[in-house]
Amino acid sequence: MSVQDTNEKTAAPSRRDFLRFSALGLAVPIAGMAVSACGGGSAAEQKAENAGNAASTKAAASGTHADSDHSGGTMAANPATPASAAEVRRRADEMDAHHEKGIKAFPAKTNVMGNQLMQPRIVNGVKVFELTAARMQWETEPGKFVEAFAYNGQVPGPQIRVTEGDRVRVVLKNNLDQSTAIHFHGLLVPIEQDGVPFITQPPVKPGDSYTYEFTVPNAGSHMYHSHHNSAEQVGKGLLGAFIVAPRRPRAVERADIDYVMILNDGSHGYTLNGKGFPATEPIVAKLGQKVRVRFMNEGMMIHPMHLHGMGMKVIDKDGYPQPMPWMCDTLNVAPGERWDVIIDCNNPGTWAFHCHILPHAETPNGMFGMVTALIVQK
Amino acid sequence: MSVQDTNEKTAAPSRRDFLRFSALGLAVPIAGMAVSACGGGSAAEQKAENAGNAASTKAAASGTHADSDHSGGTMAANPATPASAAEVRRRADEMDAHHEKGIKAFPAKTNVMGNQLMQPRIVNGVKVFELTAARMQWETEPGKFVEAFAYNGQVPGPQIRVTEGDRVRVVLKNNLDQSTAIHFHGLLVPIEQDGVPFITQPPVKPGDSYTYEFTVPNAGSHMYHSHHNSAEQVGKGLLGAFIVAPRRPRAVERADIDYVMILNDGSHGYTLNGKGFPATEPIVAKLGQKVRVRFMNEGMMIHPMHLHGMGMKVIDKDGYPQPMPWMCDTLNVAPGERWDVIIDCNNPGTWAFHCHILPHAETPNGMFGMVTALIVQK
Amino acid sequence: MSVQDTNEKTAAPSRRDFLRFSALGLAVPIAGMAVSACGGGSAAEQKAENAGNAASTKAAASGTHADSDHSGGTMAANPATPASAAEVRRRADEMDAHHEKGIKAFPAKTNVMGNQLMQPRIVNGVKVFELTAARMQWETEPGKFVEAFAYNGQVPGPQIRVTEGDRVRVVLKNNLDQSTAIHFHGLLVPIEQDGVPFITQPPVKPGDSYTYEFTVPNAGSHMYHSHHNSAEQVGKGLLGAFIVAPRRPRAVERADIDYVMILNDGSHGYTLNGKGFPATEPIVAKLGQKVRVRFMNEGMMIHPMHLHGMGMKVIDKDGYPQPMPWMCDTLNVAPGERWDVIIDCNNPGTWAFHCHILPHAETPNGMFGMVTALIVQK
Repeated sequence: MSVQDTNEKTAAPSRRDFLRFSALGLAVPIAGMAVSACGGGSAAEQKAENAGNAASTKAAASGTHADSDHSGGTMAANPATPASAAEVRRRADEMDAHHEKGIKAFPAKTNVMGNQLMQPRIVNGVKVFELTAARMQWETEPGKFVEAFAYNGQVPGPQIRVTEGDRVRVVLKNNLDQSTAIHFHGLLVPIEQDGVPFITQPPVKPGDSYTYEFTVPNAGSHMYHSHHNSAEQVGKGLLGAFIVAPRRPRAVERADIDYVMILNDGSHGYTLNGKGFPATEPIVAKLGQKVRVRFMNEGMMIHPMHLHGMGMKVIDKDGYPQPMPWMCDTLNVAPGERWDVIIDCNNPGTWAFHCHILPHAETPNGMFGMVTALIVQK
Repeated sequence: MSVQDTNEKTAAPSRRDFLRFSALGLAVPIAGMAVSACGGGSAAEQKAENAGNAASTKAAASGTHADSDHSGGTMAANPATPASAAEVRRRADEMDAHHEKGIKAFPAKTNVMGNQLMQPRIVNGVKVFELTAARMQWETEPGKFVEAFAYNGQVPGPQIRVTEGDRVRVVLKNNLDQSTAIHFHGLLVPIEQDGVPFITQPPVKPGDSYTYEFTVPNAGSHMYHSHHNSAEQVGKGLLGAFIVAPRRPRAVERADIDYVMILNDGSHGYTLNGKGFPATEPIVAKLGQKVRVRFMNEGMMIHPMHLHGMGMKVIDKDGYPQPMPWMCDTLNVAPGERWDVIIDCNNPGTWAFHCHILPHAETPNGMFGMVTALIVQK
Repeated sequence: MSVQDTNEKTAAPSRRDFLRFSALGLAVPIAGMAVSACGGGSAAEQKAENAGNAASTKAAASGTHADSDHSGGTMAANPATPASAAEVRRRADEMDAHHEKGIKAFPAKTNVMGNQLMQPRIVNGVKVFELTAARMQWETEPGKFVEAFAYNGQVPGPQIRVTEGDRVRVVLKNNLDQSTAIHFHGLLVPIEQDGVPFITQPPVKPGDSYTYEFTVPNAGSHMYHSHHNSAEQVGKGLLGAFIVAPRRPRAVERADIDYVMILNDGSHGYTLNGKGFPATEPIVAKLGQKVRVRFMNEGMMIHPMHLHGMGMKVIDKDGYPQPMPWMCDTLNVAPGERWDVIIDCNNPGTWAFHCHILPHAETPNGMFGMVTALIVQK
């Protein structure tokens, strides 16, 4: 199964139904206690369920008193009067309802998804990709629109996938009101194709076009983005994945699903592939499958990406094989870096997958920003 | 010697006397010059000592003039009038007195230490850990109290140490005025035990309890912390170490002392195991011993931890062995990451051990925050 | 060719002429299109050139319309009236002129360069380095002066290069109006030489001197800097490279050019070796040469350094060999870390080399701060 195919599958529309199913499927009692996954039900039903849990766990822990045998300091208990407790509970329920709403909305639908696989035109054996840069209003989560600079109306721009040795032409049309240029980040192209205005080319003026053409020199998870007024232009969305498949893949990089995850943190907020939770896209795999995630950071901050439930085998850095793959569950991705990992989907469930800088992932009103899920279906 | 034993020793009360002894023991003149370690003495005595140093080093450097032979720019010398020099010296002494005071206070006593090893109850072969979350005032350094959310009155919460394959039950009692939940960060538990409200369990409401139970799946330096309103709850202290010993330790991880160092940087300031310098805890070892440090970052920023005087051999990342251990003296630890290192204590002395983001470690009034010491005793 | 020699060459004055030559030399049309490198010419000539490009690329892409076949969202085209288009172009030209000015000014001359190789006096076989700390006004880019604390009138201080086993004496003269001290960051010196006031020595008072002396214990890319009021003192410039050559270099570290790149981000702005673009120093190599870059971060932030056009082989971390060298094009350097890389200069051209946190490298007025170039000459 080719890399390109598998990515298409991930993007299949039926994916949006998997989350609820998956969570419900896992709602089985374990260890004799009423522990259950919260697959569905209203907030009201949830409360009843919680009450049941509380009762059963109290029974299970009978004989222990939570406040005994701790050498604590000045621990402040909650006020004991029933009225206060009710008010505390009401406020907690209110906060929790916000959290629940976000989770239940995931994956929330927005107008357009970025990072969609682009089919090149083939002209005399050359793969031709046409990219038009223009301003637009980009929807990062339902109803939240931000000012964007986009390639072909997508943030990130269309996903480009080619193979080592391919002849590639990228035609940039600038419909912005400022000059721009494209740098192929990580691709070891000849200097004329490097995309740095006034060093390797003139800036591409508003209304003008510019053509890059080269033979793809090196495999790996690369990027294309503006290299002109880049703090603004990349921050607003002029960026995309440029994936180069090797002619002979190594055994270690075989995967059933090939997923690109572009991190950003500029004026669009904290985003994964241009969207903030709950509009982010879950990765859906079947038990036993291998998922390759290509992390790319186009932001201004590090993002240590943490996967629950399974480890990540790190195989590539910036398109170069790591000499010895190594395992982690939290991978620190710095601006400009690309890291490729393989996840062996051996643990069924809906697993949180998020930046572990917690203010990039959660507020008192629930999860937001750089949060998605890896769903492993039985 | 088992890993658990050695940690206990590190926490022995006699440790507080080692620092001064160690520094004094090293106060030997070298190379014929009056270089001395500042073990004791008042600020006044110190001045006299400095004067001696200045005289001898001037002699040693005779024939050179500090301002000659440098192609410097517009170097601004101090004002030359004696009155100004005296005032400059007075101000310098005042600043230095603040610095000295901090050093001399180290390790300063506070009410309660966090991260204390917790003994489980054993119930039918299950190791039962009871954790009560509640608000408290936490003393980060003498007299400085911050609002905390704590497990069992400790920040970090009690240190849990178990072995691969153990059956473990964690009973969470929520005495907070908001809901909470526990995520076992790095442990590859079944989805029902993953602790993400509305995905794998209901939130645990104020006053309620909740029980987690699982067979410990994977060795390593892991953590437990809130996964509900986590930016606030973890920031305020709902976090702790969950160390899993392997059934068969590798040769490379043998150590005489096993030390957990949890980094944090939220509303409690820059802390190591919940304390800021000078209330941080020195690590005390004997010459020739090996110390394992388990770095864990529960904050929102990177912290590149720098050890003076000796290198650190990096053996584990997030509980996974690094395929080839590697050496460093400054280890960048990102939020959510855990890194295990082995230090071969082959250089006697009191060695600064601190975050190398200098504003996390020093102000014009002296060292603070993420600073401790590794004391290697002859 | 020895490591020390090569560094000297890099600093040769004739270097300043290479950039323009290099860019012009590469201005060759490729692939039958009017793609050209912008070696010279005024902004007006540039416009004409761009117009030509636009025409030819439109022809090359005939049959395609840039706005067609894209499933874009609400893409906002530029206003179509000629008057508006002219105004848009005028503004774009104005912005681009700022960008061009910066590039053309590179490498811009400033009064004094820091990080200059220091020749020691040899006294009875001891290499004696004399460092005087004093306030000065430091020019980070033409006409921009900042308040600095400097060693010998340089920011970074003079570059020290010695060999493992050398006997070294460092005489610090304090002409500042506050106390100071030197820590040899990464050098595994005896505790008395570690430079932490009140732990290993008294602070060196204004007007006083202090002498460090030791036998150099370990090879690698190390640093010297203040360890007293260090957030201010290092931030303002009391820092320098302390390079220790091994007695027997490994094959992997052989290089034709040995370049130290010290990153900083304090009150002097974003700097490479104390200068901001365009006053930074290009690295100039010949095709086929190997360049060793020793990254050192003396700042408070990470800086992921990105090289265009060629990969970097990472060989050392903090002076320790990496067990297996690995490749990257973007290397995340955290405060206090040193990373050594080897660049195989196999791609001719003027390659941007910059921090990939884009606001550290570019504003709407063009590149600034942590930007330089690796120039590979045919």
